[in-house]
Amino acid sequence: MIAVLTGGTGGAKLIEGLVAEIDPAELAIICNTGDDCEFYGLNISPDIDTITYTLGGLSDSTKGWGIRGDTFAVLEQLKRLGNDGWFNLGDKDLATHITRTDLLRQGHALSAVTARIAHALGIRATILPMSDQRVETRVTTPLGEISFQEFFVKQRWSLDVSAIRYAGVEQSRPAAGVLETIHNARAIVICPSNPITSIGPILAVPGIRNALRSTGTPIIGVSPLIGSTAVSGPAHKLLQAVGLEPSTLGVAVCYRDFLKLLFIADDDQHLSRQIEALGVGVRTTDIRMPSVPDKRRLALEILSLIR
Amino acid sequence: MIAVLTGGTGGAKLIEGLVAEIDPAELAIICNTGDDCEFYGLNISPDIDTITYTLGGLSDSTKGWGIRGDTFAVLEQLKRLGNDGWFNLGDKDLATHITRTDLLRQGHALSAVTARIAHALGIRATILPMSDQRVETRVTTPLGEISFQEFFVKQRWSLDVSAIRYAGVEQSRPAAGVLETIHNARAIVICPSNPITSIGPILAVPGIRNALRSTGTPIIGVSPLIGSTAVSGPAHKLLQAVGLEPSTLGVAVCYRDFLKLLFIADDDQHLSRQIEALGVGVRTTDIRMPSVPDKRRLALEILSLIR
Repeated sequence: MIAVLTGGTGGAKLIEGLVAEIDPAELAIICNTGDDCEFYGLNISPDIDTITYTLGGLSDSTKGWGIRGDTFAVLEQLKRLGNDGWFNLGDKDLATHITRTDLLRQGHALSAVTARIAHALGIRATILPMSDQRVETRVTTPLGEISFQEFFVKQRWSLDVSAIRYAGVEQSRPAAGVLETIHNARAIVICPSNPITSIGPILAVPGIRNALRSTGTPIIGVSPLIGSTAVSGPAHKLLQAVGLEPSTLGVAVCYRDFLKLLFIADDDQHLSRQIEALGVGVRTTDIRMPSVPDKRRLALEILSLIR
Repeated sequence: MIAVLTGGTGGAKLIEGLVAEIDPAELAIICNTGDDCEFYGLNISPDIDTITYTLGGLSDSTKGWGIRGDTFAVLEQLKRLGNDGWFNLGDKDLATHITRTDLLRQGHALSAVTARIAHALGIRATILPMSDQRVETRVTTPLGEISFQEFFVKQRWSLDVSAIRYAGVEQSRPAAGVLETIHNARAIVICPSNPITSIGPILAVPGIRNALRSTGTPIIGVSPLIGSTAVSGPAHKLLQAVGLEPSTLGVAVCYRDFLKLLFIADDDQHLSRQIEALGVGVRTTDIRMPSVPDKRRLALEILSLIR
């Protein structure tokens, strides 16, 4: 079993590569839920859904979110009925949120709901939320403290950020299966996801970071940055907001207490010695994954190290 | 102000005729909510929606339910995710249910939610649920006691019915505006709706039947039956189930304590004397409304009596 810690977009690319190279049943994916949100009274788990749609062969790789070829009839009518429509939700995508909300309200745990949806879509990999409790990444901006989705989607991450916190994380516990997955894995992969708002919330759930520190299993990461910019999204901006260098070096600092090896971009080779000084090994490669062959190549590089 | 008591399909036809002949702002419609149900965790009010869509110019007069030209992308995906899909819900229709459920969960009353949706759709008539409390029409069949939707939609009203009750009605109160509407109306129209499962639940809400009995306002009804069969739906079957004659005479018995006049089909003229013996006046006419001119003609016949 290989364990993976991931957010949405960047992680989904690497996971798509991994399941093309190994039996998906051997993959257990621990997903960030700090971006989870509620729109129109529906419970939305953007990162779980991106991973689920990717593994179910439904994802829209052009848009980077939602379901390929989805329509927007419900959203259009929701707007007509006077609802705010800035958070885009397709019709098929809404079926996921309606199902999740219904099951959660019936008292099922998010982990059980996630497994049920994955099973219905024929997914053989295990998808685990980091926690069954609600944890909410909050971003302090000149507009005040807002949710991650408001910062990321509504404001298109244009606002200055002075602080980030994971509301509720102290009271949260790892979801059933998360610690077991970390303990039993023969390798653990930290996906090229945002270290502050995607991997950060997972690490902040009490017990998870300690489990990573204490396991003897090799933990291998992939940097989401090239130079001073994230391959996609605001990782560099958020690293800076918490006082870290907006580069692969800042990423290594985030994971230095448990990471054995970090894949970094060829262009960042000059950072190798500083990263190694943190106690983290380095491999340089092409970390961009614009195409399926790129995803598979990077997955194979990681897998060959594990083997 | 003219007050109307209605269920879904048959009532919607007459209401479409009425709003074509008078200023819609002069119409206050008291809707049955005994058919309200929950699917996929969403609160659905079929009769309110049929009336709302009719007044908003959205209704599908061919199907008799839902929104014209609606698509079914969400429902297809809900089925794929393992949900039971026997209750048809279109995409635009779902936007209504999502909005309603969200507002109800926020603590708004059904009457406020109904008004808000009607306003968003540009509707000038007043649409009132009979009650803001949950009342559920339950039907006893050989399969046991089931909901009205299960009887009507899933079983296509094919089962034998031995009893009908309105669960929760004793604890319910008329929604804000209902009693005022009855007291202040210059006329009250009982639509050609099912007397047992459409008008019956409204009359069973404590205070409504008494208000109809004690008001001096003329109350005029239209029978939903011709001969021994309802123009649409199972009214005749349900009249029989409660021990009444499956005919316009049975309808008159249901309303005898407050109805001044009943419009009945020309073919039912032979029942006139028996109905009049109940203290209810009779007018014979063509009560079918397959087309818009028919709806307007019948509405005009009623309005000319009121004037």
